[in-house]
Amino acid sequence: MIRTRLKQTAAVAALLGIGAVVAGAAQAESLDQVMKRRNLTQKDLLSAAKTYTPTGGRDEFVAFSSGGQSGQVIVYGIPSMRILKYIAVFTPEPWQGYGYDEESKAVLAQGKIGGRDITWGDTHHPAITETNGDYDGQWLFINDKSSPRLAVISLHDFETQQIVVNPVMQSEHGGAFVTPNSDYVIEASQYPAPLGGGFAPLEEFNEKYRGAVTYWKFDREAGRIDQSKSFSIELPPYSQDLSDAGKGVSDGWSFTNSFCTERYVGGIERGRPPFEAGCSANDTDFLHVFNWKKAEEVYKAGKTTKINGHDVISLKTAVDEGILFLIPEPKSPHGVDVSPDGKYIVVGGKLDSQVSIYSFEKIQASIAAKKFSGVDAYGVPIIDIKDALHKQVALGLGPLHTQYDAKPCVAYTSLYVDSQVAKYDYCEGKILDKVSVHYNIGHLMSMEGDSVHPKGKYVVALNKLAIDRFNPVGPLHPQNHQLIDVSGDKMEVIYDMPLPLGEPHYSVAIAADKLKPLVRYKFGTDSRTGKTSPVATRPGQERIERSPGEVKVFGTLIRSHITPEIVEVEEGDKVSFHLTNTERAEDEVHGFAVSGHNVNLSVEPGKTATAAFTADRPGVYPYYCTEFCSALHLEMEGYLLVKPKGLAQAAAVQTAGVTYAKGDFDKQYKSCVDTQAVIDSVVGYITSTNFKDFPQVVSMVEDATDQLNFAADARKKADEAAKKEDWQNATLWAGQWWQYQVKAADIGLRAKTFLEQNGAKKVK
Amino acid sequence: MIRTRLKQTAAVAALLGIGAVVAGAAQAESLDQVMKRRNLTQKDLLSAAKTYTPTGGRDEFVAFSSGGQSGQVIVYGIPSMRILKYIAVFTPEPWQGYGYDEESKAVLAQGKIGGRDITWGDTHHPAITETNGDYDGQWLFINDKSSPRLAVISLHDFETQQIVVNPVMQSEHGGAFVTPNSDYVIEASQYPAPLGGGFAPLEEFNEKYRGAVTYWKFDREAGRIDQSKSFSIELPPYSQDLSDAGKGVSDGWSFTNSFCTERYVGGIERGRPPFEAGCSANDTDFLHVFNWKKAEEVYKAGKTTKINGHDVISLKTAVDEGILFLIPEPKSPHGVDVSPDGKYIVVGGKLDSQVSIYSFEKIQASIAAKKFSGVDAYGVPIIDIKDALHKQVALGLGPLHTQYDAKPCVAYTSLYVDSQVAKYDYCEGKILDKVSVHYNIGHLMSMEGDSVHPKGKYVVALNKLAIDRFNPVGPLHPQNHQLIDVSGDKMEVIYDMPLPLGEPHYSVAIAADKLKPLVRYKFGTDSRTGKTSPVATRPGQERIERSPGEVKVFGTLIRSHITPEIVEVEEGDKVSFHLTNTERAEDEVHGFAVSGHNVNLSVEPGKTATAAFTADRPGVYPYYCTEFCSALHLEMEGYLLVKPKGLAQAAAVQTAGVTYAKGDFDKQYKSCVDTQAVIDSVVGYITSTNFKDFPQVVSMVEDATDQLNFAADARKKADEAAKKEDWQNATLWAGQWWQYQVKAADIGLRAKTFLEQNGAKKVK
Repeated sequence: MIRTRLKQTAAVAALLGIGAVVAGAAQAESLDQVMKRRNLTQKDLLSAAKTYTPTGGRDEFVAFSSGGQSGQVIVYGIPSMRILKYIAVFTPEPWQGYGYDEESKAVLAQGKIGGRDITWGDTHHPAITETNGDYDGQWLFINDKSSPRLAVISLHDFETQQIVVNPVMQSEHGGAFVTPNSDYVIEASQYPAPLGGGFAPLEEFNEKYRGAVTYWKFDREAGRIDQSKSFSIELPPYSQDLSDAGKGVSDGWSFTNSFCTERYVGGIERGRPPFEAGCSANDTDFLHVFNWKKAEEVYKAGKTTKINGHDVISLKTAVDEGILFLIPEPKSPHGVDVSPDGKYIVVGGKLDSQVSIYSFEKIQASIAAKKFSGVDAYGVPIIDIKDALHKQVALGLGPLHTQYDAKPCVAYTSLYVDSQVAKYDYCEGKILDKVSVHYNIGHLMSMEGDSVHPKGKYVVALNKLAIDRFNPVGPLHPQNHQLIDVSGDKMEVIYDMPLPLGEPHYSVAIAADKLKPLVRYKFGTDSRTGKTSPVATRPGQERIERSPGEVKVFGTLIRSHITPEIVEVEEGDKVSFHLTNTERAEDEVHGFAVSGHNVNLSVEPGKTATAAFTADRPGVYPYYCTEFCSALHLEMEGYLLVKPKGLAQAAAVQTAGVTYAKGDFDKQYKSCVDTQAVIDSVVGYITSTNFKDFPQVVSMVEDATDQLNFAADARKKADEAAKKEDWQNATLWAGQWWQYQVKAADIGLRAKTFLEQNGAKKVK
Repeated sequence: MIRTRLKQTAAVAALLGIGAVVAGAAQAESLDQVMKRRNLTQKDLLSAAKTYTPTGGRDEFVAFSSGGQSGQVIVYGIPSMRILKYIAVFTPEPWQGYGYDEESKAVLAQGKIGGRDITWGDTHHPAITETNGDYDGQWLFINDKSSPRLAVISLHDFETQQIVVNPVMQSEHGGAFVTPNSDYVIEASQYPAPLGGGFAPLEEFNEKYRGAVTYWKFDREAGRIDQSKSFSIELPPYSQDLSDAGKGVSDGWSFTNSFCTERYVGGIERGRPPFEAGCSANDTDFLHVFNWKKAEEVYKAGKTTKINGHDVISLKTAVDEGILFLIPEPKSPHGVDVSPDGKYIVVGGKLDSQVSIYSFEKIQASIAAKKFSGVDAYGVPIIDIKDALHKQVALGLGPLHTQYDAKPCVAYTSLYVDSQVAKYDYCEGKILDKVSVHYNIGHLMSMEGDSVHPKGKYVVALNKLAIDRFNPVGPLHPQNHQLIDVSGDKMEVIYDMPLPLGEPHYSVAIAADKLKPLVRYKFGTDSRTGKTSPVATRPGQERIERSPGEVKVFGTLIRSHITPEIVEVEEGDKVSFHLTNTERAEDEVHGFAVSGHNVNLSVEPGKTATAAFTADRPGVYPYYCTEFCSALHLEMEGYLLVKPKGLAQAAAVQTAGVTYAKGDFDKQYKSCVDTQAVIDSVVGYITSTNFKDFPQVVSMVEDATDQLNFAADARKKADEAAKKEDWQNATLWAGQWWQYQVKAADIGLRAKTFLEQNGAKKVK
């Protein structure tokens, strides 16, 4: 028994009559019968109606979730909770060609550390670019905790375009958080280590180990982090943690919390209490308060030290210049979250039972008055917690992370230990509602909930354990994101969504209509630079360039052949396939793989990508399109022939497997003429409707027209060969003509179905 | 406008009254309001009810889908269509530690080709082991088209345990298909090439290029393919394609279809018509019919040739021994699917408008009578299509793949060009129903639909294009799996499921209750061998073993510390962390990463895994648990110190960041005593109910008991230190005592919530 259910479906169904309306056929189940069979309550039905999204429907919000140790970003729709894409970021992923084509290998290579390839990441906190504090849907940032790195993803094509390695940290957690116009992306370190790397014994922890916060300058024009305009601030050897940028009244400031301000070093193997005991001994840790505008001035004034070529403001300078202040916060906090108006900063201590709401105004007053309770061991001024607190609200056990509602003063905080979400008024300090989740929620996400204009409606609980929520799939369980309807007074959990790969930490959700991704690339785009590829190839310009020890193939991909189809190289040659997809049609992606070689391309319409390898083993290697792109996709093939070094070319003549005569040609020709009749009838149907009112169909018609133009070209070749009585080629080119016809017919039928199902009207 | 909707929701809602029942709070939406707001029809609501699965609910079927070019297997539930797991197979995946721990690297290394790492695969066709033709849910096989390989996945833990490389093929497509007791796994080649590798010019295509079919022997006891007991059959240089094993009356036989029996070699770059034209010129290709029982005898009799040490039955022997026959089939077919009773074999030609249903009885009669219409160019006897056909049924354009229903004689065939699914009676050759899908369906899947006892109820359309079905995510679209309710007379599309990663080709679905995966491993299991790891470590046995140039760490993981916490090595040392998760609790996974190093472990309860690397850069590298495993997971940390080569050890004494006095100890002690009161109240609640009726809660109680035992142990240490007036350690151990209490309380609260929500009764 999984749960107790209300057994009122029969009564409801008696009123419904839906079964009869829907059914038509005698055997179809009614709604009542379905609810009984599936043991659904009325509340379940309501939740189903709130989340179910029929074919072709769109989600209202799109969430970008960290993929945790998968090193990827997960994209899903809300409220349907359907996963739309895994974006490869730090981990190679062959479906996207990421790490398997040369263009993306160049992005991954930016993430090397000390010359070592790091082929995964521990992604934590995504951030969407903001304009005036509102999500603008242009770019996405995500950090890697394990190897301190930050990635830039374009939301035009959902591809990773840049990875930067933090030059001073050894690990980080408090990224990525953007300032209200995305001038800077904030990244705070986690576990202290000597800044810039290098060895120092743990006995010198207090003296030589340090934390840091980096302000990465984002060049929006270029869509890239500008490392030369970025800087860091040295921090005491606390474990810095999550961060947030000020906004509104607090714009120009940022906040980073911490744990283990005890600076405890474990050693359970030596009989010492473990880190977990020593790092949670004190009642409070420190919230770091930064005046980053001031830090920017200090950096620009050159008052920095260079570490690994990167500008670092020393702890002493940060103190002297009034950049850094500390405020006690309940121990082992997780989130530090600035309210939409920038007036409040909410911190949850995971071992506490209340959230602490700090007032930016009070903090400023203390700083202005130089009213400090003292300094820490590194001379950083400490503001008394009483002088900074607006309120503390007892929400429950383990408050962790806070997001905001569209309504003023309303916030949501996850309660890790209680496995609950609390909704409360943070201005008045009043609990409004609580709801239980399954189990052990980490972060939560409301819609645009960390922007200046949160959108309300939904909250997602990012639960860390699934335990008994889903069909079992072995000892490694999925995570569980639960969708909560927050539109009414009472929060309602309405959907459980398993995460099949990776452990998300934080997610951000944007109104779907703010995203305007591309459908196709400008012809010949290198998607990783966003610019025209120098190796893009136009149809008709395909060629093979050879130089000693090197073969470069400039080719094209189109339904359903690869040009060229035969490539011969010599053992030991460095081989590059530069391939451009010449399609315009939406979703007409082609892949490219060479058997037994470690390359795969995903070449979307307009894209140019490169597969490169050394042909080190003589042999015959089929290559083919790895996407099911048309009925003849299996025939989208070719051969890479790697001749043994020094082998003299065999002089044999190729013999055809099958030879064709005039009768074969006539038969194929007739088949083409017959097929044209089918096409004409489909075209007749489409043009008899208001198809121009349906953009999808207009695109399909364009694509079909392309195919028919190709068909005409193949027909010409068939006619020319027939004129020369070359029945072999005449028959085959007629076959190719027919292949293009089939593609046109396929698209036409797709358009016809769409029109029929979407209420197209007859116009003639 | 996406689709036209019936606007009858208001009328229905008037009858409903559900809103009022559900609402409670004034502002909550009624079902009517939700349907209006979301533009849902009554049919949509019915579909929602058929698919929506409330929290904690279970799916009826579990599907295993190929992940295409992602190299992985996708697991999802039916009817909820929620993805439960991506199983890493041919591609490294860090969340699962696959390719990042030494145990799984050993599995991936089995898949090297010619010494080259192949870190991806083009997975195509999964197959679940069968017993007497029924799915038994023990093991899963999947093939790699690009680099001809086959993987074995354990359905006990959903992990890949073996990869075998085909010793004779250069590419393959027609796998994996099992014989009715999984004695053999069938794998057929795709593009012809010299058998066993090596170079031959295309001019010698007809003479030196070959296809093949391999029968991999599966040793069920060992759960491994036994390569030494496997064999292949040499085939003509056609492009062999999908396959299926006979069953029932046809057990002992297998079937493989083909395309490009024209043996055409393209060369569009030289002005030749492309492969797609030349490979589809003839009206028919060949269905290969194998007597594999006979082949097994011939193999056992030693009538084979060794190629790369593998036994191959030559084409001549196959013909001479009556192992191989050909039957014409409509050109460019995709699926070849044997009916549940084994009597019929259905083939769809993708460029045809009908399915061809062959009769096994007629085929046998022809063979027995030696009634052949001739032989092919390689001497293989050809059975006349008329002598083999049961029926041809005109279903529509582009029939591709067939699956079966629970009802006798009922089959489903996907129509690629028409973008439809046809339901028909294959005994009588009568169409029963057709339904449109979006767009361009490839394979389809019915529940256990290729076994001897299909289960009916649902069909999934594996559509190859999504185009306009989902929120846009850039030029690379998800695929779309549409769930079709086939329980009534009319098929109804009831759910659209985007595939966020990879392009599935074929899927298999099994009744969920046949799967009995593990929740935890036997203590110290190497999950990739399924055996006890030689490097498993018991709590208390943790140690660091050093030898020149090598450091081996034998450690343990438990909420929330890693033992050991400090590891010092010298630059250049080879370092191995052998870590065992000592948890018993479900879902209590720990990870392990070392900053800046390319390792990540996923260590589920009971598992032992190894992270290994060379410490080639001096420095300080934090390591930590990459799974959010408790409130103090951030503190589950340690340090790897890599000393520069030859550096003399500094003699400094470690200074504590914070020192504790008796007052601190007393405060912490009191806090522990207070916390115990909370725990006692939760325990009081739980034990006052019938909690023993809930297995999930019983597990939680066990886990909480473990934590309280650990707490008692830490308390003892605190007491001992206090006795010695060592207030530093007394305070810290008291803190550790409290940490265990928090964990116990956390689990207790989880159990309490579960009991409250699942109708537990008071028993005392």
